[in-house]
Amino acid sequence: MRVFLFGVGVVGRHLLRLMAEERRALSDRHGLVPRLVGVADSRGRCICPDGLDEQAVLQHKEQGGSVGTMARWGTLGGTGEDVESIRSSGAEVIIETTPTNLREPIRAIERLRAAMALGCHAVCVNKAPLATAMPALVEVASYNRVHLRYSGTVGAGTPVLAWAERCTLGDRILSTRAVLNGTTNFILTRMADHAETFEAALAEAVRLGYAETDPSNDIDGLDTAAKIVILANHAMRLRVGLPQVRITGIRGIPLDHLRQARERRCSVKLIGQIDAEGVRVGPAEVPVGSPLDVPGSMNAVTLTLERTGEVSLVGRGAGGRETATAIIRDLVDIWQCTTRAGIGSARA
Amino acid sequence: MRVFLFGVGVVGRHLLRLMAEERRALSDRHGLVPRLVGVADSRGRCICPDGLDEQAVLQHKEQGGSVGTMARWGTLGGTGEDVESIRSSGAEVIIETTPTNLREPIRAIERLRAAMALGCHAVCVNKAPLATAMPALVEVASYNRVHLRYSGTVGAGTPVLAWAERCTLGDRILSTRAVLNGTTNFILTRMADHAETFEAALAEAVRLGYAETDPSNDIDGLDTAAKIVILANHAMRLRVGLPQVRITGIRGIPLDHLRQARERRCSVKLIGQIDAEGVRVGPAEVPVGSPLDVPGSMNAVTLTLERTGEVSLVGRGAGGRETATAIIRDLVDIWQCTTRAGIGSARA
Repeated sequence: MRVFLFGVGVVGRHLLRLMAEERRALSDRHGLVPRLVGVADSRGRCICPDGLDEQAVLQHKEQGGSVGTMARWGTLGGTGEDVESIRSSGAEVIIETTPTNLREPIRAIERLRAAMALGCHAVCVNKAPLATAMPALVEVASYNRVHLRYSGTVGAGTPVLAWAERCTLGDRILSTRAVLNGTTNFILTRMADHAETFEAALAEAVRLGYAETDPSNDIDGLDTAAKIVILANHAMRLRVGLPQVRITGIRGIPLDHLRQARERRCSVKLIGQIDAEGVRVGPAEVPVGSPLDVPGSMNAVTLTLERTGEVSLVGRGAGGRETATAIIRDLVDIWQCTTRAGIGSARA
Repeated sequence: MRVFLFGVGVVGRHLLRLMAEERRALSDRHGLVPRLVGVADSRGRCICPDGLDEQAVLQHKEQGGSVGTMARWGTLGGTGEDVESIRSSGAEVIIETTPTNLREPIRAIERLRAAMALGCHAVCVNKAPLATAMPALVEVASYNRVHLRYSGTVGAGTPVLAWAERCTLGDRILSTRAVLNGTTNFILTRMADHAETFEAALAEAVRLGYAETDPSNDIDGLDTAAKIVILANHAMRLRVGLPQVRITGIRGIPLDHLRQARERRCSVKLIGQIDAEGVRVGPAEVPVGSPLDVPGSMNAVTLTLERTGEVSLVGRGAGGRETATAIIRDLVDIWQCTTRAGIGSARA
């Protein structure tokens, strides 16, 4: 399977490492042999229809070079060049790992759209195009009869989306509550455990590398909102985007709120919620010891199903290697969907 | 889709109710129209290739009659008659909901085998044939190019098996620990919370209807063992059966064990475990507040993945309606696998 990688940041590099490490296992277990026919970073691109060596790309990047200086190609540019690059590489799948920019998602949307219009499948771990244009992108995939996968956007390596979708077969999701952002969860846990103010806990999160130096996407709730939008579209078949989400972050949340919650044997979490009243994000209380009461950087999702009641999934929600694992999972999934007869398998 | 239902106990009746209630939704959402062409209970059977009315079957059963006295057919008998019944009904799927009998699984094994040899898909919520002969049954399904589904055998309505399988795409399960039996979990929780002896807690479980009057399958660990065997085969591709499981139950477990665990801030649970040392079942400690520390009749499964770390699923693990929901899920799944082109869908 010929793949074109867009974005060679933390996730992209982990993916290149995994592709090299797992070559044998992917071939043995799934009959899948991914071949890297193109790679693009913010400064350029390198195309090689015969296949690039992942280790060489990694080495070049670690020395600070752009992939554009590696080989024949090496230009920046607009959408037209994305199309041209994909076409000339002969890629069958594009992997979109450029940084999530929720305020300017257009470039990534156009890239996905163009690739799918060319008949390429797409794996996307960039939340921006999905959080802002998921109904349209799903339609483009369907119209062009290609697969669009994005399991790494929610829960990183924890397969939240596939699990939630499976829960809807023969049942209905009445509501969803989820803790989907590790930074805010670290801050809230730290405030409650150490009786620290928001500002002190945030500074600690930045110091430890849990928060970006500009942590606004996290603490103002945008990251959680993007993920809950993707979950709403995927598992609950709602056609919503970021503008439809009522968002309250945790910036400046008073320590007293957390103290009072603790007296009621509750923890305060930044909760993304989907129910009859719509899609929203905000701090809310969850009972101590309940599945949503996860510590630190863990993610948790609780679905209330019409017949099965509450089911919860708990797992690590971030990490470059975990997200790269989700990309491999999506590649295997696309490979299986395009090759299997769909008969004779015994899956439950 | 023409279905033949074997077993009209609690699960079978919930299924008949769901099929009637959900007729419209299944057709609208999935294009699936299940038609009941045969039904068998322990005393007889009724076959009607034009389709039986679910409500009529339910009413007849509630008046204490066997389905065998409903219509043309009505006989007991051996495997030969199962085959003959399935064949003459024109069924495309059989649904096996007869009671789990781990000591005498042969009849159910033979029924599944015969149905699949006839080209029927099979949905099975009876744990006995799978816990004792899963590798063989999976082979029969594969050889005959039919689907064998059994999602209701582990976790009832909570889709444990599909979730665990999804986790293995692009990752590897290193070990599995699971709480899969509500009765023992109720007893252990009750002992710890009320400082009761095993015998007193068991008596309470029987009084409240959580335990059968013969609770040995639960408290001696066989039920957990059956489920962990199915999980091991399905998600970890191990070819094991019940005889390969080292089983220790909780019968007569001393209250002191639970007290000492509590002092270490742990709970004692009956844990099914799969790792490099094999498959085993026995009481073990889990940290208070960890995902496996579930109360009462809840089930919980924690997978340790090579790259993603620990992921846990928590949900209600029993109930006739929940299990019937799992059967509907399997029917939808089979329907989708046999009809979809496998292209143009946007799943993550």
